Amino acid sequence: MTLKNLLKSLSVITFVMGCSMIFPVITGIVYDEPFLPFLLLMLSVLAVCGAILWGLRHHNANLNVREGAFVVTSIWLILGVVGALPFVFYGATPSFSDAVFETISGFTTTGASIMSDIEALPKMLLMWRSAMHWFGGMGIIVFSIAVLPMVGNGALQLIKAEGIMDEKLTPHIRDTAMALWKVYLAFTIANALLLYWAGMLPFDAINHAFSTIATGGFSTKNDSFGHYAHNDAIMWITIFFMVISGINYLAHFKLLKKDFSGYRTSEPRLYLQLFFAISLLAGLMIFLHQPQQLGFYESMKHSFFTIASIMTTTGFASIDYVDWTNAFLIFTILVMVIGGCAGSTAGGVKVIRYVVLFKALAVEIKRMVHPRGVYVMLMDNRKITSGILTAMLGFFALYFCTNAALTIYLSMRGLDLTTALSASLAMVGNVGPGLGLVGPMDNFSFMAWYDKLILSLAMVIGRLECYTFFLLLSRSFWKRF
Amino acid sequence: MTLKNLLKSLSVITFVMGCSMIFPVITGIVYDEPFLPFLLLMLSVLAVCGAILWGLRHHNANLNVREGAFVVTSIWLILGVVGALPFVFYGATPSFSDAVFETISGFTTTGASIMSDIEALPKMLLMWRSAMHWFGGMGIIVFSIAVLPMVGNGALQLIKAEGIMDEKLTPHIRDTAMALWKVYLAFTIANALLLYWAGMLPFDAINHAFSTIATGGFSTKNDSFGHYAHNDAIMWITIFFMVISGINYLAHFKLLKKDFSGYRTSEPRLYLQLFFAISLLAGLMIFLHQPQQLGFYESMKHSFFTIASIMTTTGFASIDYVDWTNAFLIFTILVMVIGGCAGSTAGGVKVIRYVVLFKALAVEIKRMVHPRGVYVMLMDNRKITSGILTAMLGFFALYFCTNAALTIYLSMRGLDLTTALSASLAMVGNVGPGLGLVGPMDNFSFMAWYDKLILSLAMVIGRLECYTFFLLLSRSFWKRF
Ligand SMILES: [K+]
Ligand SMILES: [K+]
Repeated sequence: MTLKNLLKSLSVITFVMGCSMIFPVITGIVYDEPFLPFLLLMLSVLAVCGAILWGLRHHNANLNVREGAFVVTSIWLILGVVGALPFVFYGATPSFSDAVFETISGFTTTGASIMSDIEALPKMLLMWRSAMHWFGGMGIIVFSIAVLPMVGNGALQLIKAEGIMDEKLTPHIRDTAMALWKVYLAFTIANALLLYWAGMLPFDAINHAFSTIATGGFSTKNDSFGHYAHNDAIMWITIFFMVISGINYLAHFKLLKKDFSGYRTSEPRLYLQLFFAISLLAGLMIFLHQPQQLGFYESMKHSFFTIASIMTTTGFASIDYVDWTNAFLIFTILVMVIGGCAGSTAGGVKVIRYVVLFKALAVEIKRMVHPRGVYVMLMDNRKITSGILTAMLGFFALYFCTNAALTIYLSMRGLDLTTALSASLAMVGNVGPGLGLVGPMDNFSFMAWYDKLILSLAMVIGRLECYTFFLLLSRSFWKRF
Repeated sequence: MTLKNLLKSLSVITFVMGCSMIFPVITGIVYDEPFLPFLLLMLSVLAVCGAILWGLRHHNANLNVREGAFVVTSIWLILGVVGALPFVFYGATPSFSDAVFETISGFTTTGASIMSDIEALPKMLLMWRSAMHWFGGMGIIVFSIAVLPMVGNGALQLIKAEGIMDEKLTPHIRDTAMALWKVYLAFTIANALLLYWAGMLPFDAINHAFSTIATGGFSTKNDSFGHYAHNDAIMWITIFFMVISGINYLAHFKLLKKDFSGYRTSEPRLYLQLFFAISLLAGLMIFLHQPQQLGFYESMKHSFFTIASIMTTTGFASIDYVDWTNAFLIFTILVMVIGGCAGSTAGGVKVIRYVVLFKALAVEIKRMVHPRGVYVMLMDNRKITSGILTAMLGFFALYFCTNAALTIYLSMRGLDLTTALSASLAMVGNVGPGLGLVGPMDNFSFMAWYDKLILSLAMVIGRLECYTFFLLLSRSFWKRF
């Protein structure tokens, strides 16, 4: 672990983050808002990072596993503090910890907010929230496809083992990143144009496209997509883009080469099956049991929107479902835990791990009947080694232990079980809203400053897929430095 | 799978169950209750089973894995129906499904009830409830120590691998059962005598001893141990016996030979550490946050009692904690999931699996830092093979999937999240009471008859440690018959 390696990597990421400040600055200029502090912040960030990068221009930073894990964890301290400064400058948040929470929530694409009146904010800050999502989302795809397999996390190792990476994508981070970046950009532009076509104002269309493609969840409206719930085109366009944003980007990348095979693998197939099955069932539950009688089509529309929003861990809300029938609420919790596909911006456990889990259980049960049989676990015709299997099952354990610890903490802070459990799943799964006191039309502002910092940490742990973070806490990580 | 094997095994178990009806019959005679129907039932059961066993006396039933799994699963149909008849005879339950629920709850040592006025029941039936616990508890110890390792379930395989079985206990089921039976009997007598000494009436002392040693939870009082909460001796005696009943019976068996090493292994150590730590913390939470101000000693007493009761999955209640501070409730949920030690009558996941889980996670994290290292997982100086590890992690998955399915079902039946989740954990973990609508002073009578049958099934699945049940659902189980 050399200081130069760390410094260079951290500076590159911070530099790109600085670049993304161009969006709020332009917004400030267009809407005649006091953009000067924002511009100065951006220029300072670019200047400092630029200077470091210039100084280290001859240094070739090839990170090893430890350095990689250290960089992707410690970068959140920089992002959290620097990204929070605009909120502090413009007095948008009552305290610094609130600003940090909002920022971490932005960059992790969680989308949980401490703001109660979003529409009263300067448009610059609204754009900054969306831009953080968008920048964060791109970073997460690169991280999960290029960095995670190195760290040995099961899910992406499997994709690597599947050979998608070495066949179709170049192994270098930079080239991979550029390729994915084009797909990400194309989706965002398509989404924004379609939203504009369907009747959204350009500013809202761009913000919501940023937020949707990153499966972020920050909106420019106080009641999120409740504002657009009457506009069927906007609703279904958003459902469509949320759903595809939850699919592995390597599959999308193949699509651009007219190769549909990426969608036919086990993970996206199960993901889409689950999405349709749960949306239909949950819609039926609303239609049958909801006292305020939405009608069949409206029930289905809101069900598809909500399930898409929570399963892809976007967190938009088209309606306040926090007091709805228990059957619907349990489905929202279920899809929070499932999450989207690995290699997308979605959080949660990820569908691929359930695919492997169910295959492993089937083999275990077979093994009990015929203990001397030899069993090979296959996924998409490729072998799941016992190493990958153990890493995956370990992830489940780590994920649920993290959630158990956070739920216990929040309960000890006085929250009821529904709020504590759903808040925990919403933070570690990078969903955003939970149930109870932290429902889709509520926010996290009522919590104490240290609760907000702990929740921020939970968002980061979830975003780093647990292992990467807990790696840093282990003794063996720090040995022999 | 031969019919004779199945018939003989099922008859043996049913015969023993018939014998255990002697307790309620004697109770009926002593308290001058109409014991004749009960006596006739007992004699019929003994006659039918006796005739079958006489007919098959020359048949040597050596069960293979499939037959074993089939027997221990299908026996519940017989136990559930035959055991329910006394409740039907004496009109104690409004319907047959209620009687089945109460019976399955008894034999699985779950202790969830559909009775609201227990004290109004004939003493015979009270004794039958306790006797079912006691008989069931003994069966479970034999099952988990003698049958489960055969089925390949990780937890007990490990104990087997540890060499406790082949060193100290004879490998034959019958000898093992007799050895454990003596320990079980000694504990029960000691517990009953101590309760009597502390001031309990003889009838209540015997019933509560049966219920405590089996970690069952049925009481002879409407408010369970709330009735004895003022008697400190009874409280602490019960806490002590609940806690030791949650420890592996192989350790107790060694103790009789003055060998304390069984208690020094990882599982009982972690079990006791967790028990004391959580009881202290939960007691502190009551003392600090509970509005009705119990005082420090009373807070601790109720906390130790409740945590012991739920962690050992006994399910006695000394106080109605259902509306207590959220921090206390979350600790009750936590210990529900942890459970007692493997090889005891306790349910839940079992502490040994957490020991293995945490060791596995530590190794996984080490492996990420040094991917080429060779790692050996040890527990109590014995190797945890990858086969045992996968089986254990698979158990976690199966356990949580079962609970997720049941929680979803109960939510779709209209229950709130707290009730649905805690009821599911209480059923599959064989705890008894949950939270919300199914708290320690409530009962399950408000549910529909089919809900009760599904909950009965859940108790059986939990009692069979999941794998044994799901084995029967697999295609490979039924192939090549
Ligand atoms: K989100
Ligand atoms: K119990």
